[in-house]
Amino acid sequence: MSIDKNINQSIWFEEDSLKVIDQKLLPFHYQVITVSSSREVIDIIKDMTVRGAPVIGACAAFGVYFAFLEAKKSSSFKNTFEEIAKNIKKARPTAVNLMYAVDWMAEKIHKDSNPTEVLNWAKAYAQKDIDDCFNIGEYGVKLIQDIYQQKQDTVNILTHCNAGWLATGKYGTATAPIYLAQKLGIPIHVWVDETRPRNQGANLTAWELAQSKVPFTIIADNTGGHLMQHQQVDMVIVGSDRTSVNGDVANKIGTYLKALAAHDNQVPFYVALPTSTIDFELEDGVKNIPVEQRGSEELTHVKGLDENRNIKEVQIFPPEAQVANYAFDVTPAKYITGLITEKGIVQANKTSILSLM
Amino acid sequence: MSIDKNINQSIWFEEDSLKVIDQKLLPFHYQVITVSSSREVIDIIKDMTVRGAPVIGACAAFGVYFAFLEAKKSSSFKNTFEEIAKNIKKARPTAVNLMYAVDWMAEKIHKDSNPTEVLNWAKAYAQKDIDDCFNIGEYGVKLIQDIYQQKQDTVNILTHCNAGWLATGKYGTATAPIYLAQKLGIPIHVWVDETRPRNQGANLTAWELAQSKVPFTIIADNTGGHLMQHQQVDMVIVGSDRTSVNGDVANKIGTYLKALAAHDNQVPFYVALPTSTIDFELEDGVKNIPVEQRGSEELTHVKGLDENRNIKEVQIFPPEAQVANYAFDVTPAKYITGLITEKGIVQANKTSILSLM
Repeated sequence: MSIDKNINQSIWFEEDSLKVIDQKLLPFHYQVITVSSSREVIDIIKDMTVRGAPVIGACAAFGVYFAFLEAKKSSSFKNTFEEIAKNIKKARPTAVNLMYAVDWMAEKIHKDSNPTEVLNWAKAYAQKDIDDCFNIGEYGVKLIQDIYQQKQDTVNILTHCNAGWLATGKYGTATAPIYLAQKLGIPIHVWVDETRPRNQGANLTAWELAQSKVPFTIIADNTGGHLMQHQQVDMVIVGSDRTSVNGDVANKIGTYLKALAAHDNQVPFYVALPTSTIDFELEDGVKNIPVEQRGSEELTHVKGLDENRNIKEVQIFPPEAQVANYAFDVTPAKYITGLITEKGIVQANKTSILSLM
Repeated sequence: MSIDKNINQSIWFEEDSLKVIDQKLLPFHYQVITVSSSREVIDIIKDMTVRGAPVIGACAAFGVYFAFLEAKKSSSFKNTFEEIAKNIKKARPTAVNLMYAVDWMAEKIHKDSNPTEVLNWAKAYAQKDIDDCFNIGEYGVKLIQDIYQQKQDTVNILTHCNAGWLATGKYGTATAPIYLAQKLGIPIHVWVDETRPRNQGANLTAWELAQSKVPFTIIADNTGGHLMQHQQVDMVIVGSDRTSVNGDVANKIGTYLKALAAHDNQVPFYVALPTSTIDFELEDGVKNIPVEQRGSEELTHVKGLDENRNIKEVQIFPPEAQVANYAFDVTPAKYITGLITEKGIVQANKTSILSLM
């Protein structure tokens, strides 16, 4: 990986604290914040200082470690610990990793657990996500290699939102195959969807790709269909916040529209995801995955640099305008060419997905 | 129409000058500018002080009137007039109305034409657009009435970009049926696509609807697919900049994605357009309509109100980011339920379209 060694990880543990890149300030400022309590972990998940399903899970694991320390100091370990664990789970209702990480930690923890051992469980949880991303990259790069062998020219990949290393700890999910292709010398170019309303594509994915010197172009979210109609996209790779066992994929709002355009233009549409984001109890994602609505100010206000290069927020809609802000949509399995997981590439259907386990 | 009488028209002629609402300042400031030369007409078309295919055509007609006056004062009427007419046509290459308006005016004009008569031709051209919009409203409202009769509840209409009276002189194309439905007492609600990168939906369509007290909600362009999946959209109506004779529709970038989502969810997808925007010489719109790329600053910079309610521009992407800004896309005829024209509603195919003429 060509990313500078100091900034290819979005969270890490150091001197009794969790260190986190503040993604809200990117791409304008690079700042690391220090988190030392379960309350702070909940806050940074809620206010999207950290975002991206895997890294939310990893933060939650460290949050449970802090909860353990806090509960030890309280009058009732069990009540305090369970109360905090519940609150961590509620910080972001769509992220299944969050539930998984909290449960994975909580079921190992007892009042008399060794604090160092509890911390190591959290670290192991975070490391597993990083290993998963690496393996996703190894499987996914074969798809890019196949396109390159046929095309013998730059491979154009479209992605939506940020499923890169900022979202996952390291490597990324959707970006892992891209970084690996670059390492193998395959000429690649990435179409980066701006990803309104929070612009995670333009602000985070573009920033990440720039660090690694991967060529990219930012486009309005409206553009992908036109590009696909005109053979400018060889492949779409996106991430997933939650995947139902039948293969429906919840991801950032607008993913579904890109899947439809890919289908209409015979462009392969892949979703890169660790199997930990698959919800094996959920049968029909389109019908049953709840889609959170977020605050309207994400849409009505935009941050950028003013003429003095200070970060400034402006209100882009009239204050009286009614606004709705749906955070996710669910792409039906039938529009997904394949799921790239850490265990291999499978079709987006129940039989294939269950074969992974 | 319930629009305030003083602001339901986007251009008009008064005291030897063309008066134009500066759409670049909306929704924050309402300002009328005065235009008295062909050069100024070209400038306001190029810099999008006026936008929307029909109103661009009307401005161009007045531009040809100014060209006539200017050519009369020059040493060679014919050379000067033809040169200016050519430059007006080049101001916005995608807008077929622009070509049509210039040719319609130019073929009537001679060196010895009466200036008052030439001005009246331009006024008649602009009035015809307004009459067309009124008739589009009369045909289109029947579709809304049908949905209301079946549903007996609020009719939810999604629109993209601005095809309202700001774009057309009066009534609008896509909005004419909506205003007429409101007049008839049908409960309606409009989902307004923000329409990046220039936000014409959030800035112009929402502003217009607010003037008329039509209930609306602004959404990110990414949202329409999710809403359609969940039965929150009864109908889509958009405008068109140019329609090929086989029924392919060029409109603001992102229209195609909404058409795909409508098709996938059995939501009727209508395009409202005056027949003057049909290019009868163009057979395959998807292949043959040229799509202009506009300046990257439309995407990288955003205007809004700062904390003192002054209009402020901020740069939302890092300066080094590569950006592409395609202005239009072309929706294939097969995804269009029908074309609402001033002469009636037809299917988006050559036989139906030719039956109009």
